[in-house]
Amino acid sequence: MFKKVLIANRGEIAVQIIRSLHEMNIKAVAVYSTADKDSMFVKLADESVCIGGPQPSESYLNMAAIIDAAILTNSEAIHPGYGFLSENAEFAELCEKCSIKFIGPSSKVIDLMGNKSHAKAAMKKSGVPTIPGSDGSIDSLDDALKLADEIGYPVMLKASAGGGGKGIRECDNAEELTEIFNTTKREARISYNDDSLYMEKDLSDAKHIEMQVIADQKGNVVYFPERDCSLQRSHQKIIEETPCMEVSQDQREYLGKIVAKATKEIGYENTGTFEFLLDEKTNNFYFMEMNTRLQVEHTVSEEVAGVQLIKAQIQVAAGEELPFTQDDIKVDSYAIECRINAEDPANDFRPSPGKLERVSFPFGTEGVRIDSGVESGDTISPFYDSMISKIIVHMPDKPQAVVKMRRVIDEFKVDGVKTNRQFLDDLLQDKHFNASDFNNLYIEKSFLKEWLKKVEK
Amino acid sequence: MFKKVLIANRGEIAVQIIRSLHEMNIKAVAVYSTADKDSMFVKLADESVCIGGPQPSESYLNMAAIIDAAILTNSEAIHPGYGFLSENAEFAELCEKCSIKFIGPSSKVIDLMGNKSHAKAAMKKSGVPTIPGSDGSIDSLDDALKLADEIGYPVMLKASAGGGGKGIRECDNAEELTEIFNTTKREARISYNDDSLYMEKDLSDAKHIEMQVIADQKGNVVYFPERDCSLQRSHQKIIEETPCMEVSQDQREYLGKIVAKATKEIGYENTGTFEFLLDEKTNNFYFMEMNTRLQVEHTVSEEVAGVQLIKAQIQVAAGEELPFTQDDIKVDSYAIECRINAEDPANDFRPSPGKLERVSFPFGTEGVRIDSGVESGDTISPFYDSMISKIIVHMPDKPQAVVKMRRVIDEFKVDGVKTNRQFLDDLLQDKHFNASDFNNLYIEKSFLKEWLKKVEK
Repeated sequence: MFKKVLIANRGEIAVQIIRSLHEMNIKAVAVYSTADKDSMFVKLADESVCIGGPQPSESYLNMAAIIDAAILTNSEAIHPGYGFLSENAEFAELCEKCSIKFIGPSSKVIDLMGNKSHAKAAMKKSGVPTIPGSDGSIDSLDDALKLADEIGYPVMLKASAGGGGKGIRECDNAEELTEIFNTTKREARISYNDDSLYMEKDLSDAKHIEMQVIADQKGNVVYFPERDCSLQRSHQKIIEETPCMEVSQDQREYLGKIVAKATKEIGYENTGTFEFLLDEKTNNFYFMEMNTRLQVEHTVSEEVAGVQLIKAQIQVAAGEELPFTQDDIKVDSYAIECRINAEDPANDFRPSPGKLERVSFPFGTEGVRIDSGVESGDTISPFYDSMISKIIVHMPDKPQAVVKMRRVIDEFKVDGVKTNRQFLDDLLQDKHFNASDFNNLYIEKSFLKEWLKKVEK
Repeated sequence: MFKKVLIANRGEIAVQIIRSLHEMNIKAVAVYSTADKDSMFVKLADESVCIGGPQPSESYLNMAAIIDAAILTNSEAIHPGYGFLSENAEFAELCEKCSIKFIGPSSKVIDLMGNKSHAKAAMKKSGVPTIPGSDGSIDSLDDALKLADEIGYPVMLKASAGGGGKGIRECDNAEELTEIFNTTKREARISYNDDSLYMEKDLSDAKHIEMQVIADQKGNVVYFPERDCSLQRSHQKIIEETPCMEVSQDQREYLGKIVAKATKEIGYENTGTFEFLLDEKTNNFYFMEMNTRLQVEHTVSEEVAGVQLIKAQIQVAAGEELPFTQDDIKVDSYAIECRINAEDPANDFRPSPGKLERVSFPFGTEGVRIDSGVESGDTISPFYDSMISKIIVHMPDKPQAVVKMRRVIDEFKVDGVKTNRQFLDDLLQDKHFNASDFNNLYIEKSFLKEWLKKVEK
């Protein structure tokens, strides 16, 4: 086992990684920016190295400085946490070249899964259902109409070279498709100097269901019960839950076996998450992308499954066998996570950085877990994400968990910055939320509008 | 369901009861002594009433003041917590007379189980194994020798009228018994003006195993996996765990069925705990006494069983059915509780009251629960018990839980008062503790002596 591990991250996740290392009797090395010098994670670490200024590019994205710190401190491995360099194939490769174990998959696999079309091709090859659409570009309106009939409307027409929203059109029927085909082609040419288009089934009106896996170097793979992360705003997850009430045990096993097989076939090591769209009309899952790292919401899976994921990550990175098997993974309870952020939901969720004059963390009582990287008196920095804490509640069922989550949020008093507490509490009382009757568009197209009307009053 | 409940207690347990009430949408009324006016539980409550001075007799044992506060605030029920009036039959009766629901068993049952010999007789009648010994007093040496042969040495000879240690003798064989019989008789006459003696099997060298039950008013009883509370000093529990590694599933069910039957037969309502001695030589259980209230260590049972006990107490007190059945009670994991106290273990565990200048509560990560009634800046009062917090760790097994508990205790920094952190940490590393190779005498007769030698160095 490693004797010393460096954490290439900050805040809450750095704190939890340090704790896992300490429980494994491994020394923890923190790297920090000048803005974080007084942070909890720096105090908790056994050693710490300042790696640069407050801008992420100067510090937490500064690969050379991090690798230097690892070499300087004789760290044998680097845990990248989530965000920052955690899905950066170049960084993983740099670690490999320096004989520092990157706690995650190989740089090659990160690279493969980081490229949307390569990832899709790899998944298709392994039998993972992907979003139906054209193989490569679609050249004529005739081909487009034929394919759209096959995969079913609505469809999305997208510029092959695109990315930033330009050259993307939704079509609900053949008439619309006929009307916009050439316009979209022209737009693509103007925007990207490449007029080739491809088509995909439009699944924006679906649920975001994801399934986490973990694999050791000996060929063992374990999957976890699916998480429903459909409650999002601007691709930011707001509430995550596991399991999803609308997924049956049969579907869970079906999806689990598929992702476990794909995990093996792409030579995946460590933990990662397959993100799917669940089309509620047909009850079909479609692969979106894979996150080749630990996720913020891994906590709910830990609670329900009864495992410790960061520790397992470190164990498999060190070449040990997974400390649990598929049979150990429970799915007989329910867990939910809410993120308390320093932000102003009534003002377009604008971050509200500043000093946390006083925070009352309502830890305690059965089933409550608060993962935090700050204490009273600490500052939420404008340079990084605005999360104050994650609240996780684990109960036999969703109704009991929601009741408890509301009480915890009510007690979670924060002085000094604005927070999303009220927004979360209102969402937790929403009847669509409680009935699991929501999809990816629910917050932005429905709940948020009503909520803004309410708070404006 | 009740609309408003008064909590006749303070500190950590008052906080947890208030939280349960809030989750049930019930208003919580705190009563407090002048020493507790700035306490967390007073701030959390919806209403609060000062009931007297800092001495328990002036406030938390002041029945009239508490009943007055309940009437004044229109509280429909009183939760007594643990300690103070929680096992006081007179107080329960006073509540009954005032038509205030006492959240616990009836005054009659509290009275029955509060009397050692009545309780023993009731248990015997229900088929609960009790400590073998004489029925009533034993008059002659011949009778004493005959009975001792029957129940097996060592035996205890005790003054029937005794209580405070005088007139109690241990005998390892017939010779010793012959030698001390008349001396003990004389001692009893001198001390209590009554020379009658009784005999019991000596089980001081046994494990303290207890089993909690909860019963509703409709005849449903559920028992929880046994707790091992053998690690005690001066009858103060130090570490509690569930389940006990040395109790088999068969024994658990055997004991569970017996206590459930007895619970029904004595007309018990709400939660309570049957305390047993487990004779490790014969693997037999012997009833010691019943605690007719919630216990400090109910937390470990909540974690393993996956239930919420304070809520269930309130539900059954309101006449509702138990929210779970025996089949819902899990026993496939392990939980442990340590009590962080403001005390000085190296100085005979003398309380160390004072201001908590700064406390770092290491809440967060999988399986950690910290139940506390204080925050940084609060004071541990010399008038009450010196507990700062309970740390509960819930894991698939004991080795994983112990590792995590040690890390949490290491992070649990307290400035301003002395604590038992180091003592706990050393106990958690002890090989007898880790092998579950200990009984009620282990701390005082063995571990503590070695520990004191170590710290004196």
